[in-house]
Amino acid sequence: MATPTTTPSIPGQPWLKKIKWDEHGLVPVIAQEAGSGDILMFAWMNREALAKTVELGEAVYWSRSRKKLWHKGEESGHVQKVLEIRLDCDEDVVLLKVEQAGGIACHTGRHSCFFQKFDNGDWHSVEPVLQDPATIYTDAKKAHPKKTQPKKDT
Amino acid sequence: MATPTTTPSIPGQPWLKKIKWDEHGLVPVIAQEAGSGDILMFAWMNREALAKTVELGEAVYWSRSRKKLWHKGEESGHVQKVLEIRLDCDEDVVLLKVEQAGGIACHTGRHSCFFQKFDNGDWHSVEPVLQDPATIYTDAKKAHPKKTQPKKDT
Repeated sequence: MATPTTTPSIPGQPWLKKIKWDEHGLVPVIAQEAGSGDILMFAWMNREALAKTVELGEAVYWSRSRKKLWHKGEESGHVQKVLEIRLDCDEDVVLLKVEQAGGIACHTGRHSCFFQKFDNGDWHSVEPVLQDPATIYTDAKKAHPKKTQPKKDT
Repeated sequence: MATPTTTPSIPGQPWLKKIKWDEHGLVPVIAQEAGSGDILMFAWMNREALAKTVELGEAVYWSRSRKKLWHKGEESGHVQKVLEIRLDCDEDVVLLKVEQAGGIACHTGRHSCFFQKFDNGDWHSVEPVLQDPATIYTDAKKAHPKKTQPKKDT
């Protein structure tokens, strides 16, 4: 993976320096719904993504698959308003407490990405699809007809 | 990092094969307290750790720093009883819903590892230390006097 570059817009702020970024300049991020406590998703950020998240008050991740900043909800409208940011004891994992627009965090149209439960020796989908993914990305399809949607950012 | 080897005790079980293990044979794991919804910690597992977790009904992680299986609470007594295991849409992140023995998941003696909150441009510790780490590992110190405790597994 290419190492995300630090842009001039990201000065060497002490609060960013405190984080132990991995060898790719990334940190794992957990997004938790503030109201319910549900864990919505897991993604990654680089310095610029975290600085942008603070600036906007909305979650901006680093898409490892697309190798670019990913303002969550930029296509689906399912943005995440960030109410709180936490850092763990080892300073290498970030936790966001968010409000999830539309109540849907997952590209499958479910509330949470963690919808597969281990039971009787296998994984089972146990959470309902709240919205057909095809309709979630309808507007994006019209705007970008060559794009294949829904696409999972990782 | 050395790639954890798969032991003969871990057959090619389909439920383990469904997980997309990273290039080191690991998967990130989020531990959430079932009752409160609090996110307690973040760690890693290899195939053997996850199989052992299922077998014991208690969280067993892969310690990247010690390069060995880490039965959480083996020294502190702060084991995590696993009530539920979830997998995300991309099948590369695991979520455990646990009961935390002693109410302390963090090696600093706090309930959760995510005790640093971002506020006014910096990180601040906002959660109380519930038990002096020195006393958490007292028994372990007596048993292993040469060990430096507390030690953070990563």
